[in-house]
Amino acid sequence: MASSPSPSSPSLNSGSVLQFDRFQSLVDVGFWHRLSSLKLDTLGIDQSPITLVGFFAPHSRAQVSNHLTLLSESLPTAPIDHASSIETNLGNRNRCPVPGILYNTNTLEEFKELDRDNLLQIEANKILEDIRLGKVEEDSTLLLRFLVISYADLKTWSFRYLFAFPALVIDPPATLMSLQPATQMLTAEEAESLSAACNEWRSSSLTAGIPFFIVSINSDSQATLRPLKDWESCQGDQNKLLFGFYDPCHLKTNPGWPLRNFLTFICLRWKLQKVRFFCYRERLGLANLDVSLIGDALISIPTDFTEPQYIPKVVGWERIGNRLALRCISLAESMDPQRLAASAADLNLKLMTWRAVPSLNIDVLQTAKCLLLGVGTLGCQVARTLLGWGVRKLTLVDSGRVSMSNPVRQSLYTFDDCLNGGRLKAEAAARNLKAIFPAMETEGIVMAIPMPGHPIPAQETASVLEDCKHLQALIASHDVVFLLTDTRESRWLPTLFCSHENKILINAALGFDSYLVMRHGAGPNVSTPDNNLECRDDGTAAVLMNELSLKDVGAKRRLGCYFCSDVVAPIDSTSNRTLDQQCTVTRPGLAPIAASLAVELMANILNHPDRIYAPGEIASSITGNSAQPLGLMPHQIRGTISLFSQMTLLGYSSSSCTACSETVLSEFRNRGMDFVLQAINHPTYLEDLTGLTELKQAAGSFELDWDDETDDDAEIQ
Amino acid sequence: MASSPSPSSPSLNSGSVLQFDRFQSLVDVGFWHRLSSLKLDTLGIDQSPITLVGFFAPHSRAQVSNHLTLLSESLPTAPIDHASSIETNLGNRNRCPVPGILYNTNTLEEFKELDRDNLLQIEANKILEDIRLGKVEEDSTLLLRFLVISYADLKTWSFRYLFAFPALVIDPPATLMSLQPATQMLTAEEAESLSAACNEWRSSSLTAGIPFFIVSINSDSQATLRPLKDWESCQGDQNKLLFGFYDPCHLKTNPGWPLRNFLTFICLRWKLQKVRFFCYRERLGLANLDVSLIGDALISIPTDFTEPQYIPKVVGWERIGNRLALRCISLAESMDPQRLAASAADLNLKLMTWRAVPSLNIDVLQTAKCLLLGVGTLGCQVARTLLGWGVRKLTLVDSGRVSMSNPVRQSLYTFDDCLNGGRLKAEAAARNLKAIFPAMETEGIVMAIPMPGHPIPAQETASVLEDCKHLQALIASHDVVFLLTDTRESRWLPTLFCSHENKILINAALGFDSYLVMRHGAGPNVSTPDNNLECRDDGTAAVLMNELSLKDVGAKRRLGCYFCSDVVAPIDSTSNRTLDQQCTVTRPGLAPIAASLAVELMANILNHPDRIYAPGEIASSITGNSAQPLGLMPHQIRGTISLFSQMTLLGYSSSSCTACSETVLSEFRNRGMDFVLQAINHPTYLEDLTGLTELKQAAGSFELDWDDETDDDAEIQ
Repeated sequence: MASSPSPSSPSLNSGSVLQFDRFQSLVDVGFWHRLSSLKLDTLGIDQSPITLVGFFAPHSRAQVSNHLTLLSESLPTAPIDHASSIETNLGNRNRCPVPGILYNTNTLEEFKELDRDNLLQIEANKILEDIRLGKVEEDSTLLLRFLVISYADLKTWSFRYLFAFPALVIDPPATLMSLQPATQMLTAEEAESLSAACNEWRSSSLTAGIPFFIVSINSDSQATLRPLKDWESCQGDQNKLLFGFYDPCHLKTNPGWPLRNFLTFICLRWKLQKVRFFCYRERLGLANLDVSLIGDALISIPTDFTEPQYIPKVVGWERIGNRLALRCISLAESMDPQRLAASAADLNLKLMTWRAVPSLNIDVLQTAKCLLLGVGTLGCQVARTLLGWGVRKLTLVDSGRVSMSNPVRQSLYTFDDCLNGGRLKAEAAARNLKAIFPAMETEGIVMAIPMPGHPIPAQETASVLEDCKHLQALIASHDVVFLLTDTRESRWLPTLFCSHENKILINAALGFDSYLVMRHGAGPNVSTPDNNLECRDDGTAAVLMNELSLKDVGAKRRLGCYFCSDVVAPIDSTSNRTLDQQCTVTRPGLAPIAASLAVELMANILNHPDRIYAPGEIASSITGNSAQPLGLMPHQIRGTISLFSQMTLLGYSSSSCTACSETVLSEFRNRGMDFVLQAINHPTYLEDLTGLTELKQAAGSFELDWDDETDDDAEIQ
Repeated sequence: MASSPSPSSPSLNSGSVLQFDRFQSLVDVGFWHRLSSLKLDTLGIDQSPITLVGFFAPHSRAQVSNHLTLLSESLPTAPIDHASSIETNLGNRNRCPVPGILYNTNTLEEFKELDRDNLLQIEANKILEDIRLGKVEEDSTLLLRFLVISYADLKTWSFRYLFAFPALVIDPPATLMSLQPATQMLTAEEAESLSAACNEWRSSSLTAGIPFFIVSINSDSQATLRPLKDWESCQGDQNKLLFGFYDPCHLKTNPGWPLRNFLTFICLRWKLQKVRFFCYRERLGLANLDVSLIGDALISIPTDFTEPQYIPKVVGWERIGNRLALRCISLAESMDPQRLAASAADLNLKLMTWRAVPSLNIDVLQTAKCLLLGVGTLGCQVARTLLGWGVRKLTLVDSGRVSMSNPVRQSLYTFDDCLNGGRLKAEAAARNLKAIFPAMETEGIVMAIPMPGHPIPAQETASVLEDCKHLQALIASHDVVFLLTDTRESRWLPTLFCSHENKILINAALGFDSYLVMRHGAGPNVSTPDNNLECRDDGTAAVLMNELSLKDVGAKRRLGCYFCSDVVAPIDSTSNRTLDQQCTVTRPGLAPIAASLAVELMANILNHPDRIYAPGEIASSITGNSAQPLGLMPHQIRGTISLFSQMTLLGYSSSSCTACSETVLSEFRNRGMDFVLQAINHPTYLEDLTGLTELKQAAGSFELDWDDETDDDAEIQ
C-alpha cells in the first residue's frame, strides 16, 4: 500500500529514509454531474482553472485508508467567481476541507498536451510561498493543496482525469529515527489526556477542520492541542511538543502524505532539524492512540530553499504502481437512461451558448408550453423541431386517425399506427414523442376545431360549444399556439381566441410548392368593461396585456393576423374539393421546411424582450445580424421551392379583419360563445359585422383565388 | 325476389301485367382496384364517362341468379380512348358482355349532385335510337346498356356507387298470357332439338356472347337458333318462331330483365303485338328446358314511340326494396395492410400529377437507388423526405451508434435505439424506415469514410483499402448519392468517386444558422486509355459518360463540386475541436430545411432531361416558372435562419480542384487505390498534385476560415 519512491522497504530501524503513504483520489459521481452542469450552464468554453475543495479525514475505519475525496460540493456553485473559495461545512469532522484546483480542458488533445510539470510546479511554488510568508500558520490546509486535470466529454458522459498531491522535495530526504504506536511512546496518563484533547479538538466546529496542530504535554502529563500560529507561545513553557496531523493512513509502518509538506514547513519555517510527529488516527470516530503513531524524524534544512528565487523540486502526480494514475470514468452506464437522454438533449442546446449565441435563453424555450393545433405533416415536424429546441411540454390537438398514407410524410407515425383503422393522431403523436424522448410531457386532445360558416344541427350545438370552450381553455393555458391545420376556416377560431388571450400564435400553411409561416400580432386593446371576465369560465389564468404593454402597443401598429388582408370571411371551403385538393397535395420537402421555420420563429420570439409585441423586421432592412441573439424577427416568411427562394414580409392588422379586429374582439368579449355560434352557423355574419361585405361589394366583381396560399396581399417594404 | 312495380303478385293466369325480375349488380373488388389505378395513373381529375363491359349469363346454378357483374376487365386498360369499346373475350360462355357506362366523380358532393334522371334518360334514348336505326339487329347487347355512377375515395379506399339497368317504359304495359316450363309447351322431340340447338349456340365462340336470338321450329320438330338480323328471312317459312334470350333469372313465375327491352324492340321494330318468348336457362352449363320458360305476351304498340322526337319514359335504377341500391364498399379492410400502405403512399404522389404537375415523372423517383452517406440529423431527414417522394431503395452508410443526444434531432431514432450503448445508426435507420413504411428496401452499411490527410497505420491499410473499394462499389451501384457527413474531409472520397462514376451527388452542410445544399457537376472528360477499367474490380456497372453526353459537356462549363472553390486540400480538421465544434452545433430547424431542399433538388434533377448535365440556374435569371416541371434547377442553395433568407448560386468547376479536376481524376484512373491511399497518408499530396500549393503561396498570408460553411466563394451571377 505504501508508495515506493525507492525500492527499499520501510523500516522501524533508525536512520531509514522516511517514506509517506500517498493520498489516493476518490471522486464521487456527484462531482462529475456537478462539473457537467457547471460546464454546460456556466463555463462553456472558458478553460480557466476552477477552485476545488477536497475532503479527507483521519484514518478511522480499516477498510478506508488514505483517500482524498471529491464530492459534488467540491465544486463552486454557479455563478463562478474564480477568485472566491468554496464555502464548506467546516463542522463535518469527517470532511476536512483541502484546497485544490481543477484544469478542465475542452478537448482531449488539450488534455493530453497540458504541461503537467509546469502545473505541478505552480502549485509547489504556492506551497513554498505560503510557508515563507507565514500563511500556513493561519491556514494549515494550504500545505495540502492538490491539483486535478481533466477532460469532460459531455457527449458520452466520460471523464478523463489525473490527480496530483504536490509535495516539496527536500534533499537529502528526512530520516526516520523511530515510529511507534502512540500508546508506547506516552505514559498512560499522557495518552488519556491526549485522547481527550484530540476528541475535543475534533468535536469543535472551530477546530475539527484544522488538520495540523501542536500537541503540548506539560509535566503533569496534561496534553493540549494548539494551532500552528501558537508556535511562538509554546516555546517558553518547556512542555513536550509533538507535531500532530490528521493521518489518513492506516499503516503501522508509515505516516500518511500530509506529514511530508508538514515536516518541510516545520524545518523551513521553524528551523527544527529533529521533529517528533504525531500521526493522529481514530477508531469509530474517537481518538485511538493504539493505532495513532508517534515518530521521530531528522530533517536537514536545505540551504537553497532559503534563497528567495528558489524553485522547489516537486513530486506528487498520483500513480498506480509506477504509472500515472490516469483514470477514465464513464457515467453513462451508471446513469438512469432517461435522465441520460434528457441531459444529452440539453447538451445540444447548451453547446449553442458556448460560442454561437452566448446570450441565448434556453430556459424560456424549455419551459414554454406549446399547443399544436393539427398533427399532420406540419404538426409532426413542428413537434420534432420543438423537441430539438428542448421544449418539453406539448399538447397536440387533432380529430383524425393515422391513415395509411400518413407515415411517409408525417414523421411521428409508423406503419403500426395505421393498422386496425388507425390510431387517433393526437394520442399516437403524444405517445410516440415520449418514445423518442421520455422526458417529454405530452398530451393528446382528440378534438375537431369548430369552423365558421359550417352550420351545425341543433342537436350538436352543445358538443360544439364544449369544443369551443375547451379550445379557449387550452389556448389560455399555453404559452405558444401553433396553427397547423389544413383549411383556412379552421384557423379562424384559434386566431380569435389567441387574439383575445394575447397569446403568441404561429401559423404555417402550405401550397403545392410554396409556404407561408407567420406570427400573428398582439390582440387589440378593446376597452369594454369586464372584457377579461366575460368569457372565462375555465378557471385558467390568461396573460392579458398589462398597462405597460398597452402603452407600447399604442405607439406601434399591430402586426396582422392570417385573416387581416382578406376581403372575405372564412366559410366552408372544403366541400366539393377533388382528392388532390382534399389531400393538400404538396411537395414532400415543403412541410419540414415550413414547420422548421415556424419553430425557429418561435425561438426568436421567445428570445426577444418584447415577445408578442416585437416589431416585424424584414431582411432588406437589416444589413448584418439583428440586435436580437437569434437574428431577424420577421412577421411573415414566404417561400417557394419552384424558385428555391424565400422572403420576409410585413403586414399590419386590418380594422375589417374577421378574426382580430377590435370590432370582432369586442363582440366576442361582450357576447362570448353566442357570438362564436353565430359565426359558425351564419356564413355571412362575420362579413356583415366587420364591413367586409361592403368592402367586397366595393371591389365589384373581384375574383378570388381560394388557394390557401395566395390570397394574402401583404405589403413588401 | 321479383321486383314489384305494382303490388299485385305475378300470376300464371292470362291477362296479368308481365313483370320482370330485375338485374342485380355484383362488383368484383378487382374492378375497384383497376378503377383506382386508372384514376391515379391515367385519368386524374378527368371526369369523362368511362366505357364499361358488364357480364351476365343464362341462369345455371340455383344459388346465383340474375346478376350483372363487373370485373377488373370491365374497365379499359390505359391509355383510355373514350370512344373505343373494350376488347372482351367473346368466347367465355359464362360472361356474356354487355355495354355500360361509368360516371365516376371527383368528389362526394358531385356524386350526390349528379343528375341521375338525365343520365338514365340519355341511356334510354340510346336504346331507342339503336332500336329505330336497326343497330340492335347487328348487336343485340345494345338492348342491355347499363349505367353506373360512382365516387371513388382513394384516400380511404372506399367506393360509393349506384347501378341502373335502363328499361323503356311502354304504356300500357305488356300483358302476360301464359308462362310455362318449356318442356310443357313443346313436344319431346321439339324440346330435344331445341336443347341441342341451344347447346350448339352456346358452345360456339361466334354466338355464345349473343344473348338474344330467334328460335325457329319447323314442322319436323327441328329447332334452329338464328340471330335477330335473320328476322326477315324467317318470315316466309311458316315455322313456329320463339323469341329467345339468355335469362339470368331463376324464377318460375317471371322472366328476367333482358326480356323487357327485347319485347319493346320486337313490338317497335317488327310490329308484333303477340310474342311467344323463350327464357333460356341452363343447368350445369347445358340447356335445360325444364327450368327454361316459354310464355306469351301481348304488347300494344305505343303510338307516341313512333314520333321521331319522342322521349321515352325509362326506369331502371337498382333498388333494394323501395330504396335506391346506393352501395358503399370499403376495400381497406380486405387489403393487405402493407399493400394498402404502399398504394396510399403512391396516392400522395400521383395526386400531384392530377393538377399541380401533370408532367411530373414519379417512376424515375420511385425506382431511383439512393445512397446516403451519413445518417445523422441530415441523413435522417433526407431519408424521410425521400420516403415522401416515393423513393423505395435506400442504402444508409454510417459508422456511428445512436447516442442519447440523437433522437431529439435525428428523426429516425427513438430512445430505445440509444439503450445499451446504442444501436448502429446505419442498421437502426434501415430497420426503422421499414417500420415506417414496410415497402422500403433499405440496407444499412456500417462503414467509416476514409479521409485524406488522416494518415493510417500500416496494419490498417488493408481494411481502409477495403472500405475505399466498398464505397466505390456502392456509389457505382446507386443512382443518386447524398453527402451528409459532418466534416469537410469526409466529403472528399465520395466526391472523387462520384466524379469518376459520373453519379449525381447532392451535398448538404450546416453551420450554426446557415446551410448549403448543392449538386456537384458531371465528372471531367479524361481521355486516358482504359480509364474506365482501371479501378473497377467490384463487378458493378457504372454509368459513365457516353459519347452524346460528352459532346454536351464539351459545349458547357462543368458545374463545380464542394471543393472547387477551395484553395486548400481537405485534411484533418477534426482534431482539437471543442465539444460545441465536435457536435456541429446548429439551430434545430436547420437540418430539416437543408435535408428537404437536398431531396427537392434531387427531384428536380431526376425530372430534368439532362439530369447531371442540367445547367445551373439562379432565381434572378428566371422570371416566372422554369421550363422544367418542378421549376428552377439551381446549382447551390445557401440560406441563413438569422435573416430567414435563402439564395441560389452558381459556381463552375476548377482546374485546381482536389476532388473533381481532370488532374485528380486522371491520376485516380491511372493509379487507382494507390492514389487514394497516398492522399489519405500524405496531407500535402493533393495540394502538390493540383497546384493548390502554389495557389496558396501566391495568396500570401491568406487567413482561412475553417468553418465548413463559409470557405466557398461561389460566384453569384
